[in-house]
Amino acid sequence: MTRAHPAGPRHADVLPSHDLPGSVPRDGAELDVLPAVVWPRHAARHDDGSVRLAGVDVRDLAERHGTPLFVVDEADFRSRCRDHAQAYGDPGLVHYASKAFLCTEVARWVADEGLGLDVCSEGELATALRAGFPPERIAMHGNNKSLTELEAALTAGVGKIVVDSFAEIARLDDLARRHDRVADVMVRVTVGVEAHTHEFIATAHEDQKFGFSLAGGDAAEAARRVLKSRGLRLVGLHSHIGSQIFDAGGFELAARRVVGLLAEIRAEHGDLADTASALVDLGGGMGIAYTTADQPRTAAWLAGELQAIVERECARAGIPVPRIAVEPGRAIAGPGTVTLYTVGTIKDVELGGGTRRRYVSVDGGMSDNIRTALYDAAYDCRLVSRSATGVPGAANPGGDTPVLCRVVGKHCESGDVVVRDCWLPADLAPGDLLAVGATGAYCYAMASAYNKVPRPAVVAVRDGADRTMLRRETLDDLARLEVL
Amino acid sequence: MTRAHPAGPRHADVLPSHDLPGSVPRDGAELDVLPAVVWPRHAARHDDGSVRLAGVDVRDLAERHGTPLFVVDEADFRSRCRDHAQAYGDPGLVHYASKAFLCTEVARWVADEGLGLDVCSEGELATALRAGFPPERIAMHGNNKSLTELEAALTAGVGKIVVDSFAEIARLDDLARRHDRVADVMVRVTVGVEAHTHEFIATAHEDQKFGFSLAGGDAAEAARRVLKSRGLRLVGLHSHIGSQIFDAGGFELAARRVVGLLAEIRAEHGDLADTASALVDLGGGMGIAYTTADQPRTAAWLAGELQAIVERECARAGIPVPRIAVEPGRAIAGPGTVTLYTVGTIKDVELGGGTRRRYVSVDGGMSDNIRTALYDAAYDCRLVSRSATGVPGAANPGGDTPVLCRVVGKHCESGDVVVRDCWLPADLAPGDLLAVGATGAYCYAMASAYNKVPRPAVVAVRDGADRTMLRRETLDDLARLEVL
Repeated sequence: MTRAHPAGPRHADVLPSHDLPGSVPRDGAELDVLPAVVWPRHAARHDDGSVRLAGVDVRDLAERHGTPLFVVDEADFRSRCRDHAQAYGDPGLVHYASKAFLCTEVARWVADEGLGLDVCSEGELATALRAGFPPERIAMHGNNKSLTELEAALTAGVGKIVVDSFAEIARLDDLARRHDRVADVMVRVTVGVEAHTHEFIATAHEDQKFGFSLAGGDAAEAARRVLKSRGLRLVGLHSHIGSQIFDAGGFELAARRVVGLLAEIRAEHGDLADTASALVDLGGGMGIAYTTADQPRTAAWLAGELQAIVERECARAGIPVPRIAVEPGRAIAGPGTVTLYTVGTIKDVELGGGTRRRYVSVDGGMSDNIRTALYDAAYDCRLVSRSATGVPGAANPGGDTPVLCRVVGKHCESGDVVVRDCWLPADLAPGDLLAVGATGAYCYAMASAYNKVPRPAVVAVRDGADRTMLRRETLDDLARLEVL
Repeated sequence: MTRAHPAGPRHADVLPSHDLPGSVPRDGAELDVLPAVVWPRHAARHDDGSVRLAGVDVRDLAERHGTPLFVVDEADFRSRCRDHAQAYGDPGLVHYASKAFLCTEVARWVADEGLGLDVCSEGELATALRAGFPPERIAMHGNNKSLTELEAALTAGVGKIVVDSFAEIARLDDLARRHDRVADVMVRVTVGVEAHTHEFIATAHEDQKFGFSLAGGDAAEAARRVLKSRGLRLVGLHSHIGSQIFDAGGFELAARRVVGLLAEIRAEHGDLADTASALVDLGGGMGIAYTTADQPRTAAWLAGELQAIVERECARAGIPVPRIAVEPGRAIAGPGTVTLYTVGTIKDVELGGGTRRRYVSVDGGMSDNIRTALYDAAYDCRLVSRSATGVPGAANPGGDTPVLCRVVGKHCESGDVVVRDCWLPADLAPGDLLAVGATGAYCYAMASAYNKVPRPAVVAVRDGADRTMLRRETLDDLARLEVL
């Protein structure tokens, strides 16, 4: 297709089938496995067949809170904060990217663990402050921060503001001086590297909305303007190269280019650039396992690679080695959360040539997980509890033989797919509980109320106890913005 | 790409450039045109340069309500209801598909105009009932209606329930008998036609979650089961073939196949099938103009085509001609609404070879319009008011010469694009107001609070007056689900 139709070429598409992630299960027993690489660190299927998340039975969770339900393994989340803190030698150098998922309680966890926090809006900042998050450990991002947001950040005393355009440098300088402050800023540099999974693309120029182009000279000019601004202090350079990255190659090239720019800035500005060259933030994008086909590296591995790269490049450029900061979001929030759904209807659809596809409809969908439709994302999905409720609608015969299924939502749209391809037992029945793994990042955060389907609750589980962090939206909540 | 990466191949993508929709504007004056095919029926740019929507100046709207702001031309919406009612000879045969956009006030408009209403969730049903919408004119859709939803529909006394699976036929029959009712139902048939813009694909089988396959015999079996169910009465057949359709070819084939099924049902069930063959609902999907490249047909034209097709097919099959119903959503709600945004930052990004792309960042984005990222949709975007506020950040030189721009949002994601390609005057400046046309369908309805960016207000304009239908979400609203 050479050109998109205005209404969108993908609008009516059913997502295509791809090669299946992972291998074909041999038998029903294999369907019971909860792969450690995907599932929360404290998820387990017990000998009696029950599945517990941090010691809490999923049946109890579904009964107490209803479905769909996001269940967050608190100790998993915290352990990934610690993994990163340890890897970078200082929790303050690890900024949790709150866009992945943020609520007050999660902000408290991040604060407890000593990490920094990235926000990119007034709403994210307000949530952090409500949690009592130390403002000096907050960094504010964004390509189009409003004056209100810049002022809120200044007033709160956030640690760093990442400047993203010449207009913003002027605005922030003006605001800071009017507030009689000096704001610590980092310059966001677009280094011409775009990384994703096991690939990266290196170009001179980047066609994107964020940052200042290194190749075009805008980044050096941004540093120049910040250094000249009385209301601003340059405390480092920032680069972000992509998402769901499994290799260090892209980071290596980005680090080399950022260090090159640092050397230039030092050459041009001398002592003035001392603080500017104290910190290099290499951003986020560390990959996690959505299915068993993914084999992510550890935080320690990547930290070691980045440290070695930056040290080598600084030695080559003859400049002092800056501290390295990173911004994991998905890598902290993603793996510890699963979404519980209840099966509603099961339908075998004839595809011709004697083949049929089994459609399993659950009680959520693209409103609580837009990633499958938006990014063509894959997920691991497991049966975690057989129904005892006797919802009308016959179970299928065939025992626990694996059957390839498509798990779909309840929305009025054919593209409303939750998991495109997964294996489930043949005798799956309405009322059964399914769990989809690794839904902690960019699911609830991007949730909508499409079709006026209320947003699910989010509960934390820890040491055998569960606690609601975000209650389920009600129909009254959905009506609260109505002016009648 | 042969297989999607689990995290999604499109995750880090910047949307590609396509051929531009519409022609290249010759001069600044051409940028001032508000193309009638895209814009609300009561939008006008006056001689003094001001843009008014139903007589209300956009500057006043922005000042009173803030931006981003959805502005709905009430008379436009109502006139499209009337166009359809007239085209099909009876407003009751036109069901507004509320998934496109629904709030209490809009449900009242639809009720006033005498149309029917499609809902597909308890939330949509509750909104309709809150508006006092006559339940007998409501139809309930959905591939996975919960027992609660089916019961709510029965209790409210909705006119029709569109059954979608064998399990649901059993459930609804059971529920209806327990409530001592007989529910009027339609059977949703998948006819093997998938239509979009000027194309349609005809297959024997359809790989999708909705309905009963005609070719596989499931549709005939569904009719058989409904006719045998004491709690259900079959009042028609339903088919829905796609979205944003400009031609009648797909509808023609669908109608032929549905009429064929009706003939089969009559042959098998005799008099029993009289009510079953009284109504054929051919669904929604009527296309609208998002840019001047689209030239949609009128409701009257499509109604005439459908009537002729169904009459011909019924004559051929020797059966009485059923009434034809349709379900426009986008075609009623889409064109009458625009989104107002305020320009925040403007950035020229070097692309190499001497070319630069101008990124214009506005104060909303993928949270209020996910369609560009999700469906690669195109939009028409116009400067509607010059700033008088003096936001710091210099205007560009070049007067009103057209410059190709990309309008992007404020979210922390490179795919956050509002309008991929549009022409705007060279001297566009921060603080200026832009309007994006035809945002009435599937924008607010799919809105999220991604990055904790509150949802915009929705105001109705009519005869020089404006009224808030949905107030702007506040940071307090965003926190209301928190359990602290």
